[in-house]
Amino acid sequence: MARPKLHDVAARAGVSVTTVSRVLNNRGYLSDDVRARVGAAIDELGYRPDAIARSLIRRRSGLIGVIVPTVADPFFGELVAAIEHGLAERGYKTLLCDCQENPEREAEYLDLLQANRVDGIVTSTHNRGVTAYEDADLPIVAVDRRVGGGIPIVRGDNRTGGRLATEHLLARGARAPVLVTATDHEGNDRAASYREVMASHGLAPRVRAYGYSTGIDERRALVETWLSETAADGVFATDDLTALMALEWAHKTGRSVPGDLRIVGYDGSAVVRWGMPGLTTVIQPIARLGRRAADLVADRIEDPERLTPAEPPLPVELRLGWTS
Amino acid sequence: MARPKLHDVAARAGVSVTTVSRVLNNRGYLSDDVRARVGAAIDELGYRPDAIARSLIRRRSGLIGVIVPTVADPFFGELVAAIEHGLAERGYKTLLCDCQENPEREAEYLDLLQANRVDGIVTSTHNRGVTAYEDADLPIVAVDRRVGGGIPIVRGDNRTGGRLATEHLLARGARAPVLVTATDHEGNDRAASYREVMASHGLAPRVRAYGYSTGIDERRALVETWLSETAADGVFATDDLTALMALEWAHKTGRSVPGDLRIVGYDGSAVVRWGMPGLTTVIQPIARLGRRAADLVADRIEDPERLTPAEPPLPVELRLGWTS
Repeated sequence: MARPKLHDVAARAGVSVTTVSRVLNNRGYLSDDVRARVGAAIDELGYRPDAIARSLIRRRSGLIGVIVPTVADPFFGELVAAIEHGLAERGYKTLLCDCQENPEREAEYLDLLQANRVDGIVTSTHNRGVTAYEDADLPIVAVDRRVGGGIPIVRGDNRTGGRLATEHLLARGARAPVLVTATDHEGNDRAASYREVMASHGLAPRVRAYGYSTGIDERRALVETWLSETAADGVFATDDLTALMALEWAHKTGRSVPGDLRIVGYDGSAVVRWGMPGLTTVIQPIARLGRRAADLVADRIEDPERLTPAEPPLPVELRLGWTS
Repeated sequence: MARPKLHDVAARAGVSVTTVSRVLNNRGYLSDDVRARVGAAIDELGYRPDAIARSLIRRRSGLIGVIVPTVADPFFGELVAAIEHGLAERGYKTLLCDCQENPEREAEYLDLLQANRVDGIVTSTHNRGVTAYEDADLPIVAVDRRVGGGIPIVRGDNRTGGRLATEHLLARGARAPVLVTATDHEGNDRAASYREVMASHGLAPRVRAYGYSTGIDERRALVETWLSETAADGVFATDDLTALMALEWAHKTGRSVPGDLRIVGYDGSAVVRWGMPGLTTVIQPIARLGRRAADLVADRIEDPERLTPAEPPLPVELRLGWTS
């Protein structure tokens, strides 16, 4: 038979459709008898609440858009897994938007999410040109990104992470450590700390930025050129994949690690911790970042009047491996 | 002002709501004049088609549920990114279900997806107890998993992959290579090929299975115990993370690689190819698997009568590194 509908349940229970929807939404006064009759009708018919019909009543889709560069990157894969688990616990579903570091695609997604009336958005991309977030009238939470418009940011303590990494390289004897990062803008706190620590030791900073949309092969070529031309004796890479590229370059060119080149990465995703335990890296609390972002967007949906104080950055730690 | 609704557009254009919905869905006869008036009203009001209302008309949610163990795993992260991009090109959105290798959670998701009337499902989990897929009256596509009930499977050529890996280990001089895999069931084609190649060389197979839901630390302990107690001179790990665990164990225990222990992994996700280019591994066509799964589920939604012939397995290749 055709899938049972709300009015089939109402007819079977001998009540109105409105009453059935009240039972489903647990709203308004309902006698025990009515609840029991509707419940029995639902069981007998094998009725499943139709999400589309319910969202029309509640004006809620139960969906949260999650916009990331790509879950193929282990940092974002782990982050999205944590966001999804956190949202599921709060009763929300995750609409994944994997925008491939492409600002146009990100702007399209943002439009689509608003058209689809998602209940909220979590964004963690790096596209700095997308300003539409400021105009969106939805609860939005950013992860490690400055979006503007009073949108709260959940992030790790990048200031401390940059300081720990740079101080460690210097403590291990590096005098010409290069910083390799995605973009060298004013909001890059890891780069700011690198510069501060270098300055406090009277050393000249060497900052190289490859740009977020640079392909992997091109990034590898840039990293190899920079390490070579700066005569670097250390490298602070603000992500682990770039650190592993430096490690491979050292192997290929016969440099000893850490003797000739000290290497420190950043992120410490589970994949890197498991697969490359020898890499010295700054470990971000990825699961906590995802969980906090999920809770914060759910809080803002469920209590739009709630004032959101600035989020304190979550602590990071330096894990020592054999690369430094 | 409040967000403009369908009836606001209809009033402004001087047509009925039905006519506006026809324009939005591009359905039925419409004069150029009516199209122009509705278009102008949409522009003037800044109307965005309400997805909830549209799906009520079309009885389509535009959502596909994508069920995976976890996108924190680089293979599944890369697979989901490819599925998402493929679905987006076909006009579908991705509802991510990250079920953490938990059969109960997977069954809950399956129920939830049906209740939410997703248009279809792509599943790539390993939970063998979940039989509800066979009863679901939705287009479903499986990736590298036997679900039953005539559900098509998109997969890499595991038979060939297992053969290439095992033959390579033997060609490099291994006489006691151990197979480390997740589960040793009849559908494990990589294990079947390992056994065949070993038998054809008159060698006894050594198969060890850790179980999908085994935690990382426990898996690592098992792998180390097995490598030690089998006096293995080679290891074929049916995923790259397990191969990297074997590599780390060799470093820790002073064994040379590949002299004492030859190591071959499986999957070849981008993360592993970039971060650990020295690992010999069987490279799966992850992007093609994801894209094919997306197209196949979209085809089945858009033409439910279409007969789906068995999917030929997609080709894999052995990439040589220094670990073998």
